[in-house]
Amino acid sequence: MKVTLALLAVLAAPVETSAPYAEAAGRILEAERTDGQAWAILQHLTDRIGPRLSGSPGAEASVVWTLERLRSWGLDARTEPVIVPRWVRGIETAEVVAPVSQRLVVTALGGSDPTPPGGVTAEVVEVRGFDELKSRGEAVRGKIVLFNRAMRAGFGGPEGYGSVASLRTRGAIEAAKLGAVATLLRSIGTASLRTPHTGLMNYEEGVPRIPGAAVSAEDADLLHRLLASGEPVRVRLELTCRSEPDVPSANVVADLRGREKPEDVVLIGAHLDSWDLGTGAIDDGAGVAMVMETLRLLKALGLRPRRTLRGVLFMNEENGLRGAIAYAERHKDALARHVVAIEADSGAARPTGFGVSAGPGGLERVREIARLLEPLGATEVTPGGGGADISRLRPAGVPLLGLLLDPTRYFDYHHSPADTLDKVDPAELARGTAALAVMAYALAEMPDVLPRLEPAPREAR
Amino acid sequence: MKVTLALLAVLAAPVETSAPYAEAAGRILEAERTDGQAWAILQHLTDRIGPRLSGSPGAEASVVWTLERLRSWGLDARTEPVIVPRWVRGIETAEVVAPVSQRLVVTALGGSDPTPPGGVTAEVVEVRGFDELKSRGEAVRGKIVLFNRAMRAGFGGPEGYGSVASLRTRGAIEAAKLGAVATLLRSIGTASLRTPHTGLMNYEEGVPRIPGAAVSAEDADLLHRLLASGEPVRVRLELTCRSEPDVPSANVVADLRGREKPEDVVLIGAHLDSWDLGTGAIDDGAGVAMVMETLRLLKALGLRPRRTLRGVLFMNEENGLRGAIAYAERHKDALARHVVAIEADSGAARPTGFGVSAGPGGLERVREIARLLEPLGATEVTPGGGGADISRLRPAGVPLLGLLLDPTRYFDYHHSPADTLDKVDPAELARGTAALAVMAYALAEMPDVLPRLEPAPREAR
Repeated sequence: MKVTLALLAVLAAPVETSAPYAEAAGRILEAERTDGQAWAILQHLTDRIGPRLSGSPGAEASVVWTLERLRSWGLDARTEPVIVPRWVRGIETAEVVAPVSQRLVVTALGGSDPTPPGGVTAEVVEVRGFDELKSRGEAVRGKIVLFNRAMRAGFGGPEGYGSVASLRTRGAIEAAKLGAVATLLRSIGTASLRTPHTGLMNYEEGVPRIPGAAVSAEDADLLHRLLASGEPVRVRLELTCRSEPDVPSANVVADLRGREKPEDVVLIGAHLDSWDLGTGAIDDGAGVAMVMETLRLLKALGLRPRRTLRGVLFMNEENGLRGAIAYAERHKDALARHVVAIEADSGAARPTGFGVSAGPGGLERVREIARLLEPLGATEVTPGGGGADISRLRPAGVPLLGLLLDPTRYFDYHHSPADTLDKVDPAELARGTAALAVMAYALAEMPDVLPRLEPAPREAR
Repeated sequence: MKVTLALLAVLAAPVETSAPYAEAAGRILEAERTDGQAWAILQHLTDRIGPRLSGSPGAEASVVWTLERLRSWGLDARTEPVIVPRWVRGIETAEVVAPVSQRLVVTALGGSDPTPPGGVTAEVVEVRGFDELKSRGEAVRGKIVLFNRAMRAGFGGPEGYGSVASLRTRGAIEAAKLGAVATLLRSIGTASLRTPHTGLMNYEEGVPRIPGAAVSAEDADLLHRLLASGEPVRVRLELTCRSEPDVPSANVVADLRGREKPEDVVLIGAHLDSWDLGTGAIDDGAGVAMVMETLRLLKALGLRPRRTLRGVLFMNEENGLRGAIAYAERHKDALARHVVAIEADSGAARPTGFGVSAGPGGLERVREIARLLEPLGATEVTPGGGGADISRLRPAGVPLLGLLLDPTRYFDYHHSPADTLDKVDPAELARGTAALAVMAYALAEMPDVLPRLEPAPREAR
């Protein structure tokens, strides 16, 4: 990263929007490169605290520790209460019992009810999606439905995460409507060494609650091959996971109070909670580290912007979004003064730019600021941006940005036991942090604000 | 694979040794490409029988099924008794208990004794190898030793499998000599998604038997980072695996009886048993499939060579080598007529050639035959070859060959739950089979035999 030369190029360019922040951006980039603490934050969250599923001791420890750290840097930090679900993983085993005997590698989907004691044993019906499920009709009754569709790469696109995520979230509902007794989901991911990937599943009022588990890609392939022979394939699935009563938890909120317009808020957010199988390094310890480090760094550099820069470490993004809902509700009267929100929840790889949801002209404004990120190679600004936590600010018209990072390997690890610190490159984490810090600073400092979105008449849940 | 053109080139070349078999080789290559059954054999072994650890129901099923298949092809097949160890995996859990609380992903090493009930809890001492272990001396007493050295790639070389395998086989012995209470081994492998790789560990008469487990690479890294902080790191390890009394099992032996010299034997071998975590596709279901298919194919093509071609499916290569020992003992008076032995136990990837251990001039003879494998790109012939099972024939001077396959991804899956059928490309498996079949046929058909090795005065165990 040749900061100095690249910044000279930026300074030389006739760009009104970014030029005023070039000096500050240069200081941020240089400080993050040489003296950033994002890695140390992430290491503590993952190595010392570990998994942080909502309602778990790890989640609570992360609230306590991040609050303490933010305060230690002289920031105005506090917790805001959130009541969260508490779901506890248990025994999870499965095996093919006919026509052969084979162990399957499974993990319960988050929120699943347990199986009856001793497990559920039934024939497997394989489908690729909901259309095929419905076409099976009565053939599904009493069966275990295997949703077996592979994702290929990335968040969007015809074979991306978005193309299969609903099989996880709604699979048990749709299968239960047809009388299925359980579901197995081909693990949603782009790499497998017999690796199960968990994630949230939902139930629906009035529809029987059947248990759901993810099965490794290898085992989904095995079931497919066995079924291809035409014989009935029977599987026994046992899950002892359970939902316990809701428990109190918290979002952590920290402000770098604005110099001129303290009531105007630029929000930068990430989520404290993680799934329980790994240690939540890429999802979303990295985002938490970037948000905390942005605040620390600007404070340390004396870069107090015009507006208030607020970091929000949301609780319960993974299995309830309760932190996002609580924030939007608690601050509903202040959302008109939330001038923009940026979410960092796309991993820890090389930053590439920002996705933007804003009113007319907003994208172009962000693109101009992103010229400051030329030294990072993070100048890509694309329409559509945000994140699950800040999506609750959308109805109030708050412009939303999502930090974009190279997605190539994200779903190799996502929601799996392999989401651990070693998957993160410290230099890339520092670059991601720098991208977030420069963008946040410029948006908080610039004379005007991004055009707002059209407010929605009511919140769409 | 352009068989016809490539074979014309081979036929046109002035090579005495390979030319007489060019027509047969062409028929083998073409048949294997279009009509091979290696994949079907491997699919049955892995999907229908599954893991085949010695003494397990899967291992016994594999004896029964392969015998039946070989006989169904009209081969002279029988079992030869082998008494094998029976080791049974149980619960295997570990966690860091100080200075933090973190779950570790572990798997017992094969042959390990269990921990005491409730597990063993002790401070961790990390070493990279035996020299460092010994230099720690008294500091090891009462501790859990973590052997934390990463392998990089391949079988040999300074960072290959061979550079770390002894940490697994002898780690518990050397650690126990210094008073350690258990060992953890960084999983030996080249890829990890929190993946444990098992494998054999040994005990030694007169040295306390301490339990041993492999820990995932990610968790070895975690322990390393925690130890780097200088604080004592304590781990609890619980294993309930156990060794049960030896049980009867068998090698499966099948002959394609020689046309002119039936007492002269060309042996092709692989091993029926596998580790229990995966389904033993690359280690060594693929080798079994190649050996069986070689016999089936030559029989089906009417290619009955001058000498007897014998397939041996060895039992218990992984944890005892009892099948190899039993074969060498049972046939000790016939080993002088074993003219060569070829082992297929290096996976299922693209064949590259053969490693050769033979008397003077033997390598060159094999190299000439390997010209027939030009259409497969498998003409590499290198000094040093064989395999664990056929190594027992070495003292009798039997020339040894090992089928070489691209090793790039072999240790990604080796001994792990990810050793499953999907890791094998049917086309590559067919090519490996064709390479083995052509080489075996030529060695069984050629007028003379490979120069033998110098017999060893006694068997080195």
